[in-house]
Amino acid sequence: MHFASDNTGPVHPRVMEALMRANAGYAPGYGADAVTARAVAAVREAFEAPHAEVFLVGTGTAANALILAAMGQPWETVFCARTAHIEEDECGAPEFFSAGAKLTLLGGPDGKIAPEALEAALREAAGRSVHQVQPGPVSLTQATEKGTVYTLEELRTLCGIAHAHGRKVHMDGARFANAAVALGCSAAEMSWRAGVDALSFGGTKNGLMGAEAAVFFDPALARDFAFRRKRGAHLFSKHRYLAAQIEAALADGLWLDMAAAANDAAAALETGLAATGKAELMFPREANILFARWPRHIHRQLKAAGAEYYLDGTLEGPDPEDLLSARLVCDWSAAPDATEAFLALF
Amino acid sequence: MHFASDNTGPVHPRVMEALMRANAGYAPGYGADAVTARAVAAVREAFEAPHAEVFLVGTGTAANALILAAMGQPWETVFCARTAHIEEDECGAPEFFSAGAKLTLLGGPDGKIAPEALEAALREAAGRSVHQVQPGPVSLTQATEKGTVYTLEELRTLCGIAHAHGRKVHMDGARFANAAVALGCSAAEMSWRAGVDALSFGGTKNGLMGAEAAVFFDPALARDFAFRRKRGAHLFSKHRYLAAQIEAALADGLWLDMAAAANDAAAALETGLAATGKAELMFPREANILFARWPRHIHRQLKAAGAEYYLDGTLEGPDPEDLLSARLVCDWSAAPDATEAFLALF
Amino acid sequence: MHFASDNTGPVHPRVMEALMRANAGYAPGYGADAVTARAVAAVREAFEAPHAEVFLVGTGTAANALILAAMGQPWETVFCARTAHIEEDECGAPEFFSAGAKLTLLGGPDGKIAPEALEAALREAAGRSVHQVQPGPVSLTQATEKGTVYTLEELRTLCGIAHAHGRKVHMDGARFANAAVALGCSAAEMSWRAGVDALSFGGTKNGLMGAEAAVFFDPALARDFAFRRKRGAHLFSKHRYLAAQIEAALADGLWLDMAAAANDAAAALETGLAATGKAELMFPREANILFARWPRHIHRQLKAAGAEYYLDGTLEGPDPEDLLSARLVCDWSAAPDATEAFLALF
Amino acid sequence: MHFASDNTGPVHPRVMEALMRANAGYAPGYGADAVTARAVAAVREAFEAPHAEVFLVGTGTAANALILAAMGQPWETVFCARTAHIEEDECGAPEFFSAGAKLTLLGGPDGKIAPEALEAALREAAGRSVHQVQPGPVSLTQATEKGTVYTLEELRTLCGIAHAHGRKVHMDGARFANAAVALGCSAAEMSWRAGVDALSFGGTKNGLMGAEAAVFFDPALARDFAFRRKRGAHLFSKHRYLAAQIEAALADGLWLDMAAAANDAAAALETGLAATGKAELMFPREANILFARWPRHIHRQLKAAGAEYYLDGTLEGPDPEDLLSARLVCDWSAAPDATEAFLALF
Repeated sequence: MHFASDNTGPVHPRVMEALMRANAGYAPGYGADAVTARAVAAVREAFEAPHAEVFLVGTGTAANALILAAMGQPWETVFCARTAHIEEDECGAPEFFSAGAKLTLLGGPDGKIAPEALEAALREAAGRSVHQVQPGPVSLTQATEKGTVYTLEELRTLCGIAHAHGRKVHMDGARFANAAVALGCSAAEMSWRAGVDALSFGGTKNGLMGAEAAVFFDPALARDFAFRRKRGAHLFSKHRYLAAQIEAALADGLWLDMAAAANDAAAALETGLAATGKAELMFPREANILFARWPRHIHRQLKAAGAEYYLDGTLEGPDPEDLLSARLVCDWSAAPDATEAFLALF
Repeated sequence: MHFASDNTGPVHPRVMEALMRANAGYAPGYGADAVTARAVAAVREAFEAPHAEVFLVGTGTAANALILAAMGQPWETVFCARTAHIEEDECGAPEFFSAGAKLTLLGGPDGKIAPEALEAALREAAGRSVHQVQPGPVSLTQATEKGTVYTLEELRTLCGIAHAHGRKVHMDGARFANAAVALGCSAAEMSWRAGVDALSFGGTKNGLMGAEAAVFFDPALARDFAFRRKRGAHLFSKHRYLAAQIEAALADGLWLDMAAAANDAAAALETGLAATGKAELMFPREANILFARWPRHIHRQLKAAGAEYYLDGTLEGPDPEDLLSARLVCDWSAAPDATEAFLALF
Repeated sequence: MHFASDNTGPVHPRVMEALMRANAGYAPGYGADAVTARAVAAVREAFEAPHAEVFLVGTGTAANALILAAMGQPWETVFCARTAHIEEDECGAPEFFSAGAKLTLLGGPDGKIAPEALEAALREAAGRSVHQVQPGPVSLTQATEKGTVYTLEELRTLCGIAHAHGRKVHMDGARFANAAVALGCSAAEMSWRAGVDALSFGGTKNGLMGAEAAVFFDPALARDFAFRRKRGAHLFSKHRYLAAQIEAALADGLWLDMAAAANDAAAALETGLAATGKAELMFPREANILFARWPRHIHRQLKAAGAEYYLDGTLEGPDPEDLLSARLVCDWSAAPDATEAFLALF
Repeated sequence: MHFASDNTGPVHPRVMEALMRANAGYAPGYGADAVTARAVAAVREAFEAPHAEVFLVGTGTAANALILAAMGQPWETVFCARTAHIEEDECGAPEFFSAGAKLTLLGGPDGKIAPEALEAALREAAGRSVHQVQPGPVSLTQATEKGTVYTLEELRTLCGIAHAHGRKVHMDGARFANAAVALGCSAAEMSWRAGVDALSFGGTKNGLMGAEAAVFFDPALARDFAFRRKRGAHLFSKHRYLAAQIEAALADGLWLDMAAAANDAAAALETGLAATGKAELMFPREANILFARWPRHIHRQLKAAGAEYYLDGTLEGPDPEDLLSARLVCDWSAAPDATEAFLALF
């Protein structure tokens, strides 16, 4: 009953095998090895983007913060959702790597940025003087932190607004795979064809050990990235072990299979929760995350039985019927019997 | 004939096995797992430092830059050897993480800081006004970038000078294991007992995949480290895989065995080079790195045969008898027959 | 009819005279002169704070950004009003000087922070983990950017909430004098007695040429300020000319007389606007700033006649009866006939 | 007998008069006023550079640090003399404003950069990899911190080397006027015609109250300067008072007259010291600064009589015949009788 996060499960066996294979003999360091060359080629192929610039790093926060720093200036502001990971879960990494840029928080339904909110913010920012922070890149999260997924149409609309105002678009794709599976679309459709200029292509939350790709569909933005990565201490010397993970994920569609398994597990949880008649969903469940509410006394039972998930509130409150909300996340390794055991406690 | 670096060899099989073991089932993220707890305990035990604060990161540059930032202020300067890794090979990471600190470069023989140079620099800095950068921590590299090893006496002297001036001491121990083996001393003797306040305890160059420990013998210095690591994007979510590497290295003295193998290989190379009568050593060979000079025409033969090492100069020069210097590095996996093949080309 | 800002009027003649007096002969640089010593003493006396640490700088943004940097850490967030100068008019200076801190924007009526908003924000922040930006200082603006003035009771309440949560309080007092006159209270009552730990004591907007004092009632916060000011390039070599301005302002209550004149002029404007029956006030007019709305066609007349003030909206809109809002600011030199001429155009 | 610095004398009366004139009535803030427009035009005219971008700031450190930040990247290094003000007297301001750039210190005679040292450093830097800090701008100080003056030929040579390596050239001209007078050349010859791309044009050390101009002969470098200045808190709201100083300095050659008076005073001091037969010059005296050595017992007499200058060493040493070095600086207001009184004590 482990629903705390998609970073608490094991690495996929095929990824571990790839690490073993990569471990044979010598390889030049810092990305000059053959595995890295193949991994970069695999990313380009998966995205149908032969000219994309691709850099590997070890954490999603590194990908986000380094890319945003490369896309903007210290005196600019990044436009993002109020609930974005870069705002709420990175302890100021975007501000640090950008040397002091701001984040402008935009509202919208279900963890998404509302197009009107983006349009209004960019219009206001267009009239700013030297006294004010200037408009920088727009950052979208796909899938969102609320487990919802922008449709292709929504992505195109938001990217279109950004571009119309001369802004570049970053996508935080820590759960890119889950979103792509949810939409049933290609990686290209959900990124550069929709207008995304640079992507944090997540791997760690999708069955890898710790590997993410910074993908620049607009290669001009990548000009200084190698220096930023190095001085950010994110250039791994034994680079083949990052690359082997990415290569394994992209081989034979493993990345999509893992995401599909995660999404399916979350869907099963959703169905089961609905069937209990005791839980109510807080956002549409579209990928591998689910937010729901149910009475405190059931939370007590679940926690007592060892279920792991984020609980918003306290088990100790006086009223056992109070509705408390939970976040449940599934990864590729989610087991059906864990879901059943979890639901049986309702 | 791979002598380019100690980050080009494979990960030790026992480390790979540890990663496999760590891959069983679920584990909480961000260091709240059992493997991390055991790895931290193992570091404390290896250093006989039960109260040390220990944090894991993925690169040596991250360990160095984050620790130095934690030890100083942006308006201070770090005292280090002119040849230190933090000066020459980190693309400004210490400056970045410290928000703009300086590095003051000190001379000395064989890649070491001369005590008189440190004393003079700290004495001068003591009299500074608000117009000048203030004195910050002292950073020692053990083993040095020139492959030499400070004796315990030298370490105590340098740390004593630093402390007498109220300065804290950092040790860049990317090759700490090689130095400890060379001196035949304990980890404690070569660190906190000699006066080191915080240590970058290297693993990656010593048979690991990518794992380093920031070890604070002075726990007060670690107060904000968790925030610095997170906003530096160096807090790994699947933290057990960093921890498993460190735990495996410290189990049954593997880390020392690997370092001994590397040092022995370098010693064999040294002996062999001396026997050729054609190469001259540039610094005492004390750990697993060796700097030597020999004629250009021999470099041409070696490179043509595929030997890998850093060459200072160009193969294309006119005079085949010119002496060009080389850096040769061995890791745990260095094979005797590679050494023999290499030497046979002289 | 110059109501654009309180930084567009001339320097008070007594301040110019003080500059002339300070210009006699030699004086040591960087604040070691007698005028600076007297100015610091005058600030301490005016605030009944003999142990306060006082530093002079040339701009209000410098005072704010340097003080906030000294009060917090790069991984913290400053709590301030959504309309604060540090958020809206400093082009990211607080973020720059703090090396990447955030600003958390709080709502409230009339440009003030609502106590409930502060309490809620600090309560939420208290439960944060390493993944999130940590709580830093609270910054209050007195008078506010909307021209309103916190009562002493309101200040005490907000400072009390901040302190109860372990947070220090900064006051942006660019218009401290106008607020003190409005409340008829002492400088001490409106600052440290109410709970303020550090103050940007404004001078430039109150008849000086360009001089502000950073006043630390909690001297511990000032420990590194001299270094921060110097490396921020805000330590003036010919320091006596900053000091002479501050000394002149504090001599014989000139600073309060100037603020009273400014407030009175704004009050006259308020009365006159009400008398026209065509303008409506948007916030209570409590100091020297006034926000009001009136029809576009009157704005057209005023602007055509050369009136200067910030207009929110465009003169070119189709409907002459649209209400557009204006900001009107008075300084010590505001002339009654300018006000009359302005009102006559309604 | 005030020879401590050229920032300890009074502001020139004509500059004070200009401030008085600028104080009449209203003027828009932040540089949108008529005085600023005239000052910028005067700078362009003085430098015969109609397309130069000109920005005013209040301190020389601000001019240097902001310009260097605009000319480089955080992962670059600035090449400067070992004795440069940016290295020795700005408490890390260049590092702060550049977000962590380094300074590479170059040797040379008499406080100058030796051309061979620059050539060697740039050649070495050209071959750097991603692991190393990249080459950034070259910064020359004219007049140097040792009181010497680069000849036009020397400037052209150094700028030529820099440009041949693709590097831009900054000139720290805190004492630009003194150097121009010493060389008897035009402002254009000593700046852009010699190859300087951006200049810190000093005023404060040359009779102004606190005003410096950042002059970009290469306007492309100035693109973001307005934002950098504002977020560095160096955009003065009552901008006319900075501008009035610059305008007054450039009117009727006052800036050159003041510098000539300072240089002449230093020359008189030099002649007088030589005549004593007891002092020896340490560097050629070419502008308004003079470094010399003489016995401790004379220093004791001078200091006892109230003479002010920087003394390198201590009056308390045992041997009264020890030679201790002194720095003597003259400004426009240096009085002949002070010099005579000073010399009479030898």
